[in-house]
Amino acid sequence: MDFLEMAKTRYSARSYSDKKIEKEKLNKILEAGRIAPTAVNFQPQKIIVVQSEAGLAKIASAAKTYNPAAALIVCADTDISWKRRRYDNMDSGFIDASIVTTYMMLEARALEVDSLWICAFNPDIIKKEFDLPENIVPVNILELGYADCEPKSSDRYDAERKPLSETVFYEKLGS
Amino acid sequence: MDFLEMAKTRYSARSYSDKKIEKEKLNKILEAGRIAPTAVNFQPQKIIVVQSEAGLAKIASAAKTYNPAAALIVCADTDISWKRRRYDNMDSGFIDASIVTTYMMLEARALEVDSLWICAFNPDIIKKEFDLPENIVPVNILELGYADCEPKSSDRYDAERKPLSETVFYEKLGS
Repeated sequence: MDFLEMAKTRYSARSYSDKKIEKEKLNKILEAGRIAPTAVNFQPQKIIVVQSEAGLAKIASAAKTYNPAAALIVCADTDISWKRRRYDNMDSGFIDASIVTTYMMLEARALEVDSLWICAFNPDIIKKEFDLPENIVPVNILELGYADCEPKSSDRYDAERKPLSETVFYEKLGS
Repeated sequence: MDFLEMAKTRYSARSYSDKKIEKEKLNKILEAGRIAPTAVNFQPQKIIVVQSEAGLAKIASAAKTYNPAAALIVCADTDISWKRRRYDNMDSGFIDASIVTTYMMLEARALEVDSLWICAFNPDIIKKEFDLPENIVPVNILELGYADCEPKSSDRYDAERKPLSETVFYEKLGS
């Protein structure tokens, strides 16, 4: 199966079985995050792997979650991340953390581990519950596990995706 | 080849041959960006495909570029992107544009098209040269083409990547 076809099998999983994630698979998922490119190769990601009942409950206090087997809190370390200092000081930590999360999500899918990407969380609760210092910014939470039912069609890759004509332009916007 | 092995073959290409990107391959790369997940499926990406000499020169006026065959300016439409309004108003446009860029970069690699991800550009020049309205924020530029030499070791996936012990923690930071 090529990359595009594999990527199309990924969907947002909103119900998980009790099955844990095998250690070997989890390590491969984390390895995918390790090899992901980041700005200037600064690797500002800090990833907290949460599998305990108490840890998952902390996350559930900050976001609607779906009883995953594990959750990865992908943070950007803003003491490390590259800044676009010559121009607008844009902090690439959000971008880097999102590349890392995408790599892990896709490796999970390749290993037939299901996932849900969550940004709708209360960042202050996550920071407090996981004792994150000011420079460690939680960017994405990736829930992982084995889905126990078929996805709703609205959660699949082809859920009302816009045609390319609405998002892709040649040489200039609107063309 | 599985996903992780494929992803490891991707590197930052800093020298390209004159060979153009086949239309069929370019379309597959753009399709990968189309199927990428975005927050609430809002699909805020706006992608400008630049292949003309004049267009590539505009980009070169805003960033150090490497004579690619094409460049994709991946923007976030902040009129469309999801905002974390209940909490801190975080705009997920940067995250969404980065997921889309990652999918396209990986599909390019799967098709043996080389790439360079650029954030070190002058956003004001890009906005001006491509007549972008205020709500269309250029987030990433993805250069594409066929590399004409081997990558420097520092541009490969294994370029001094940190061990997992420096970036991954179990249950709590530092553990």
